[in-house]
Amino acid sequence: MKEHYFDDLKVGDRFKSESINMTEKQLIEFAHKFDPQMFHLSRKSAERSIFKGLIASGWHTAAMTMRLFVQTLNFAEGAIGLGVDELRWPRVVRPGDVLTVETEIVDLRASRSRPNHGIIRLRNVTINQRGEIVQTMLASAMVPRRAAKQRASKA
Amino acid sequence: MKEHYFDDLKVGDRFKSESINMTEKQLIEFAHKFDPQMFHLSRKSAERSIFKGLIASGWHTAAMTMRLFVQTLNFAEGAIGLGVDELRWPRVVRPGDVLTVETEIVDLRASRSRPNHGIIRLRNVTINQRGEIVQTMLASAMVPRRAAKQRASKA
Repeated sequence: MKEHYFDDLKVGDRFKSESINMTEKQLIEFAHKFDPQMFHLSRKSAERSIFKGLIASGWHTAAMTMRLFVQTLNFAEGAIGLGVDELRWPRVVRPGDVLTVETEIVDLRASRSRPNHGIIRLRNVTINQRGEIVQTMLASAMVPRRAAKQRASKA
Repeated sequence: MKEHYFDDLKVGDRFKSESINMTEKQLIEFAHKFDPQMFHLSRKSAERSIFKGLIASGWHTAAMTMRLFVQTLNFAEGAIGLGVDELRWPRVVRPGDVLTVETEIVDLRASRSRPNHGIIRLRNVTINQRGEIVQTMLASAMVPRRAAKQRASKA
């Protein structure tokens, strides 16, 4: 994947990640570690829940979304998460669902405290194999700028 | 832990979770699965980052917060996450940090679509062993009400 810097982006840019399969084994493993509730833990206990079957923890979907996002944008030196708003899970994720993340850059500004970084605001929408939205969020991250010399030579 | 229902809670109620250690092994394992960035993946690569050492993925802190919250409130039939706002990571989490979650109930309302459930809004603040805040969020969740008969007999 191409390495990205703050300076490569503009508002309205869109990216689409690769896809990843949410296996039953992974769903249950995540639940045992981080979200031990009946509708996440086992097929049997989940059958008796209002979901009538196993569903993924929303935090598992969020974590998998981060993986797909990080692999797609691939910021040089990394993207440092500052915060997330409007994190929603409009539909459940079930075992075997295949997730893809669509990212849109919604704002860009220079960092006041760190001249070598910029702040990006982005919308991440996670969809399943039927194109249904399973998660949305607005996130802010600090990402590296190209060195000043590089910026001058590109301008 | 005591099992909770919507009807047991009132605005302003506070809960404190047990504590949990964020080990270096867990941090690195989570990063490989969900947040493969240099400052999360290995001690060596993290040394060269602006954090000058390994830090936990914010999503790992969020997932661990869910675990502590779920174990503390222990809702009968589970808490169904509806959304999260103002998720922030004001301080980094490093290997060996010990996290605790403080929950405050900020709003309660009946569910219009599901009479057997209520909607709670809560603030979760995650602190480290020095009492420093490492994560804050506002979350909404759907939780079960006591059966109507039980409610009547309690009133």
